[in-house]
Amino acid sequence: MSRGSNITRLGGFNRAVVFDAVRRSRFGISRVELVESTGLTAQTVSNIVRRLIEDQVIEEREPIFSPGRGKPRIPLVVRAATQVSVGVHLDPARLTCVVLDASGDLLHRSSTALPHTVTPDDAVGLIADCTHRSLVDAGVERDAVLGLGIAAPGPLDITTGTVINPPLLPGWERVALRSKVREATGLRVLLDKDVTAAATGEAWSRAHADRPSFIFVYVGAGIGAGIVMDGVILRGSHNNIGEIGDLIVGESLEEGGRRRVLTLGQACDPISVVTRAAQSGVVDADPSLIDVAAAEAYFTSICHRADTGDAECVEIVRGITRGLARGIAALVNLLDVQTVVMGGPAWNRIAHLALPQLPELIGARMVAPLSPLTLQAATEGEFTAARGGAAMVLDASLSPHASALLLV
Amino acid sequence: MSRGSNITRLGGFNRAVVFDAVRRSRFGISRVELVESTGLTAQTVSNIVRRLIEDQVIEEREPIFSPGRGKPRIPLVVRAATQVSVGVHLDPARLTCVVLDASGDLLHRSSTALPHTVTPDDAVGLIADCTHRSLVDAGVERDAVLGLGIAAPGPLDITTGTVINPPLLPGWERVALRSKVREATGLRVLLDKDVTAAATGEAWSRAHADRPSFIFVYVGAGIGAGIVMDGVILRGSHNNIGEIGDLIVGESLEEGGRRRVLTLGQACDPISVVTRAAQSGVVDADPSLIDVAAAEAYFTSICHRADTGDAECVEIVRGITRGLARGIAALVNLLDVQTVVMGGPAWNRIAHLALPQLPELIGARMVAPLSPLTLQAATEGEFTAARGGAAMVLDASLSPHASALLLV
Repeated sequence: MSRGSNITRLGGFNRAVVFDAVRRSRFGISRVELVESTGLTAQTVSNIVRRLIEDQVIEEREPIFSPGRGKPRIPLVVRAATQVSVGVHLDPARLTCVVLDASGDLLHRSSTALPHTVTPDDAVGLIADCTHRSLVDAGVERDAVLGLGIAAPGPLDITTGTVINPPLLPGWERVALRSKVREATGLRVLLDKDVTAAATGEAWSRAHADRPSFIFVYVGAGIGAGIVMDGVILRGSHNNIGEIGDLIVGESLEEGGRRRVLTLGQACDPISVVTRAAQSGVVDADPSLIDVAAAEAYFTSICHRADTGDAECVEIVRGITRGLARGIAALVNLLDVQTVVMGGPAWNRIAHLALPQLPELIGARMVAPLSPLTLQAATEGEFTAARGGAAMVLDASLSPHASALLLV
Repeated sequence: MSRGSNITRLGGFNRAVVFDAVRRSRFGISRVELVESTGLTAQTVSNIVRRLIEDQVIEEREPIFSPGRGKPRIPLVVRAATQVSVGVHLDPARLTCVVLDASGDLLHRSSTALPHTVTPDDAVGLIADCTHRSLVDAGVERDAVLGLGIAAPGPLDITTGTVINPPLLPGWERVALRSKVREATGLRVLLDKDVTAAATGEAWSRAHADRPSFIFVYVGAGIGAGIVMDGVILRGSHNNIGEIGDLIVGESLEEGGRRRVLTLGQACDPISVVTRAAQSGVVDADPSLIDVAAAEAYFTSICHRADTGDAECVEIVRGITRGLARGIAALVNLLDVQTVVMGGPAWNRIAHLALPQLPELIGARMVAPLSPLTLQAATEGEFTAARGGAAMVLDASLSPHASALLLV
């Protein structure tokens, strides 16, 4: 059932709209410009700005006088360092951490390799440590921290803040990560799926675009997708959107000549790629002993050999590229979204080899090419998901949502 | 950039919220119940109701007295027949037409087989005819008609109202269907993709559910999907969401023993199924001469033979079921939506054979089974997409949208 709205909610919404416009302006925005961009009256803008200044969340910069114009332009800017958020990306192999100010600018970032099999308690301790150190290094006062956003591998139960049983974190069975980290840090904690957080981070860095639509494809120890449509980050019924590893992208020849279907996960993830390379003798390793860490090392060496022209390794990277093309074409056709953003550690290693071929391979499979495919690299490299975690906190705390107008 | 809101927009929005609550109530809703369901004050509800009655869009029913209670309950209902919409589904083989009142109740429906290769001009004439006849048969005054919604095969250019080049409508190259039908009928016309219209129709008939999420899978001359997430009908960047025919679902054995990947479209659509059946001698036809009409006839006979236990035909239907399961599992995993609604003429023919096996086959492939799969039949059978076309008109004309609060 739809809900009505009223003037109190309206006031809060308009305050958030004005604050958001100030926050997203790179070099400040004047009251006159705010009237134009928000559609509010000059009187309403003036009242809201006065209260935001009194509350110390925004401030005036030096007036700018233009020759021939009477009144100077006074840029309004966010007192960015007074409201700060932390983002942590828990990858099976690595912990990345960022601190953002309220403008979304990066104050600090760090990245640490994780031990081979990290236990939940170790992970909570490491998250608390890196959060504490990052805030100290960034010189941020504790009471300026809005919260901590964690990007973690799915599946997750978002309602209880629980990591259920991620395939690459053995022994993690229904870990209440959100409450454990809240206890360990004393901060307000948000938890979301890694690919959804990464998509949030990308949407954030595209705030200039009007309601962007894109598919974020993460290629790391596993493969997954985040989906942003018309500026809305899609989440699915249980916040577990984006499981694309089981899409069939071709077939593979097994030992003994048997043919089997090949999934996108098998085609692209380092463990599967390196295991096949070991089976066919391209790398000198026992195929049955390839774990996350070994896969990362051998995958890197395969990419280096492909760079030097090693024919077998070039063909392995081509196979990954063909698999990605087939899977991405299926997503583009299903979702009618033609902007694809690529990221993740495994992608970063093959990007320079795959990018020359990928757009044409995908384009050839597009059913209704109403607009050309745009293929982009994630703006923040390996920090995309951590940045997305921090951006989720800013979004939850500071952004206007039309749904906030509805009475609850 | 986010836009603010103001009191004029607020008034229009709240009026739409109240009207929508009255429209969706099956047996009327009182002012007291409206206060509860909309969250608006008694004074606001009372004012809006007075104006809606003055404008003759809603009316009061007989007061209902309850023993022991002072004031009688006065149900408010929509004067449904004063605001009516028409929906037409243009399928390559068939034209279906419905008339709905403002409550969404069916006033009239009809279905006509189309000639083998229908030209755009013929189609426009047939749409105008069936619209005119349906309104006359339903006894609807012309000025009560809000508009006509057309559900057509994609790809479409919605901004210009153009059907681009649907694979099963040969010779349709950029047909400006919306403006042609507007000229021929004098009505306001909306155009949308068939599967999106069908999803709209299904969402409409689930109005009791709070922000439903489901995937609508249409199996007809072609296969496609509509996606509803959190009550929002997803459309994609160009309103062409739902192309799933190219998803790979397995492999097929070609003549000469060559193996090829098998797509969902090839696994399920009647032309492909019947062509393979003709190649292997299961049906007695020239494989190179199977068109839409022939495919429909042979497909029906294959299903009848499967019903009687013919082993070859049972295996053909099983193959379709396996393909559907693989494709639907990919959609469920990607989108994290566990309710799947099946519809379309080809589905209707195999439903009783496929339904006993499909849920288990899909369930076995679900990556994160956080909630069990729910598989349902479309509520309106072959009229789903036409009903969706009419529902789109009601939605566009009558429903409250939170985005309507934003100043433009």
